[in-house]
Amino acid sequence: MAEVVVAKEILKVNDVVASANRTQFDANAIFTVNMLGSPGGGKTTLLEAMLPKMKNELTVGVIEGDLATSRDADRIEELGVQAVQINTGGGCHLDANMVANSLSSIDLAALDMVFIENVGNLVCTAGYMLGEHLRFAVLSATEGDDKIEKYPSMFQKVDAIIINKTDLLPYTDFDVDEVYTKARMLQPDVEIFQVSARTGEGIEEVMNWLLKKRSDLFA
Amino acid sequence: MAEVVVAKEILKVNDVVASANRTQFDANAIFTVNMLGSPGGGKTTLLEAMLPKMKNELTVGVIEGDLATSRDADRIEELGVQAVQINTGGGCHLDANMVANSLSSIDLAALDMVFIENVGNLVCTAGYMLGEHLRFAVLSATEGDDKIEKYPSMFQKVDAIIINKTDLLPYTDFDVDEVYTKARMLQPDVEIFQVSARTGEGIEEVMNWLLKKRSDLFA
Repeated sequence: MAEVVVAKEILKVNDVVASANRTQFDANAIFTVNMLGSPGGGKTTLLEAMLPKMKNELTVGVIEGDLATSRDADRIEELGVQAVQINTGGGCHLDANMVANSLSSIDLAALDMVFIENVGNLVCTAGYMLGEHLRFAVLSATEGDDKIEKYPSMFQKVDAIIINKTDLLPYTDFDVDEVYTKARMLQPDVEIFQVSARTGEGIEEVMNWLLKKRSDLFA
Repeated sequence: MAEVVVAKEILKVNDVVASANRTQFDANAIFTVNMLGSPGGGKTTLLEAMLPKMKNELTVGVIEGDLATSRDADRIEELGVQAVQINTGGGCHLDANMVANSLSSIDLAALDMVFIENVGNLVCTAGYMLGEHLRFAVLSATEGDDKIEKYPSMFQKVDAIIINKTDLLPYTDFDVDEVYTKARMLQPDVEIFQVSARTGEGIEEVMNWLLKKRSDLFA
């Protein structure tokens, strides 16, 4: 039983730190997005597609979460966007404390928006608030349309599902309608987008939605 | 610090139960394989491709691990193969105790080989031995060739890496050579296969390798 008590305690502490992170983001009018999804779903590629356009509208920073390497932060910095890499050293998710520690490496006063790209994981990441205003899950068309039902704890806790890799749809059995149906059984109002981060298709819609969400909050 | 102590204690208990599972498998000459990989990498589809052929050689059973649903076990049973579904109820990996509990639902005396399909996860599943003789990771070509470096704890603990969805290689930037290079930096002797579970390409090689591994052990 010790396991469960400790886990609850950790989550409680996490919520307190997440709330403090949120206060810092709010104080700086930084709209913060927690990006979730499987390994290889295309989260970094989605950022690569969005950020060059978004940079014209506002100043964006990225916090990258990975077990190891700084590959993703390097990819983001190549776009001329401020990025900080968190290595969890084996941990399967970011937590609020890791994000809090990373904030000292970011020029918060200069930023309007921060994307936190979480570790690729459809399970562990869902339970940890980081202080974000919004969270979305990237679900790639090559992963199969059964993921909503199989990983409900993830898909019932996101504001949007971004179906990525639509350019590969013709070569898969992925049923887009099935995803809409199952996702809305979990959450009737969840936003669903279809994009190809690789070709750029649908990226504009996601970007405009995020910009609107930000301006709703920090008008 | 309580967290770490509890985690170590759990892993120690897990190893004891895994060892007991292994004893049961050995006593029944059942070669047992732990299948790892990301959500949607194609683990179940790989089984669907292999089992109809493998059934001619020996009697196979499958233990399916998922957070929720019995979708995967249902798919396996449609092939006329004995399957038992473990639902972890939110847990991000199978553990040895879950497998031990599932064994009462399986006719061990009748089986020659058991596949344990773990929860789709490139992190948590790596740390828990289940009593298996062999473990492999399925890495789909649509996930990207950077996964070996980004999830080293997974790829240094497997006997083989099965690159799946090779039919989609022409539509991706996936560099197969890069995977070989990075995988062998972690483990010089790791086996690497290239398959398309969907078209059947390369399946025979994986199957023959598994059959040989079994006959090496239970000649």
